[in-house]
Amino acid sequence: MQGTSDTVEFTAFHNAPAFAHGLVRDIRVRWACEEIELPYKTRLLDTFAERPPGYLREQPFGQIPSFRDGPLDLFETGAILLHIGEKDERLLPREDAARARAVSWLFAALNSVEPALMNLVTIDIFASGQQWAQLGRPHAEEFARRRLRGVSQWLGQQEWLEGRFTLADLMMISVLRNVRHTTLVSEFGNLAEYQARGEERPAFARALAAQSADFAR
Amino acid sequence: MQGTSDTVEFTAFHNAPAFAHGLVRDIRVRWACEEIELPYKTRLLDTFAERPPGYLREQPFGQIPSFRDGPLDLFETGAILLHIGEKDERLLPREDAARARAVSWLFAALNSVEPALMNLVTIDIFASGQQWAQLGRPHAEEFARRRLRGVSQWLGQQEWLEGRFTLADLMMISVLRNVRHTTLVSEFGNLAEYQARGEERPAFARALAAQSADFAR
Repeated sequence: MQGTSDTVEFTAFHNAPAFAHGLVRDIRVRWACEEIELPYKTRLLDTFAERPPGYLREQPFGQIPSFRDGPLDLFETGAILLHIGEKDERLLPREDAARARAVSWLFAALNSVEPALMNLVTIDIFASGQQWAQLGRPHAEEFARRRLRGVSQWLGQQEWLEGRFTLADLMMISVLRNVRHTTLVSEFGNLAEYQARGEERPAFARALAAQSADFAR
Repeated sequence: MQGTSDTVEFTAFHNAPAFAHGLVRDIRVRWACEEIELPYKTRLLDTFAERPPGYLREQPFGQIPSFRDGPLDLFETGAILLHIGEKDERLLPREDAARARAVSWLFAALNSVEPALMNLVTIDIFASGQQWAQLGRPHAEEFARRRLRGVSQWLGQQEWLEGRFTLADLMMISVLRNVRHTTLVSEFGNLAEYQARGEERPAFARALAAQSADFAR
């Protein structure tokens, strides 16, 4: 699955509420592109407006990013990262066993960790002030903590999840950032350091700056 | 990522609460194996007991399945399905554009649909009777409905998500089954038919029978 185009294109927003700056999911795709110096273009949508006609055929849930690489149409950041990873072994190892581990952790970030963390985002931000959210917060926090503990125990004193930086770390760190409004990650010293290690990468800084620039237009 | 072993092996349970029969996640891997006649062995754990020593190095969250194909170790059903898909185009198309679509929907099932549905499982089963669960149910149900509507609108009158059956359908249908205790899927006639179409596949029936047989030991 190697796209043939010189420039990939994906959708992003030209505006977003402050809490979402640096979190909106195109950041993951920008970061991946920056890691391998893959040129990209963004097509900007309005967060608060109805999606353009036909957009649900690009992204069935009306979210961003949808992604195009020449004749290939993708959506879901996991699928997009995997596609970009196929272009460059710096993101996705070519050796079978290492590849299997990176792909496993990519899915773990999205199916075992992110849902638990997003429940806290819903409770604290989207539904804050609602009684069920207040009452349900301890349960959600404990569930999130349990999943973070799993990652923390695995990581131990390793720098990255599996030996060296891959798209799995890019995704896991992007997912951990979802709860930056809490102190949850910092309960696990090695996870906080791991997240910081990712955020210190020049490619991440460029991705963040590029997303901010699109918001500033 | 083509494993070389003749028989893959993964973990499953030899017991489970009744509500989880047919849903425990090894069913997804069994189903994929059955679709391509790939022989497999299960290594059975006790749902209710502590995990065996070292199991967190196989599956960092203590869940099943962890999966082995010769020298390759994987976890997360998404990663495992993708790995099995690499073995046989009946599960994962070889043509780039079709492959991109199947992988996109595989991630969509796991990151956009399943979290919304699992919140209802938590509320109705794991936390039933708790006040926050009762109060929060309408919000969770509406979120789940919105995601199902996205899939339903995409599907329209198509038989499968992208032309013909792939691992994306296998995963999406497995995910829809999580809320079989509700009438949510049946609100969308085409989704209910889609789910039934998957469940009528002989490979699914064999997978279900095999999981039941492991419970009956």
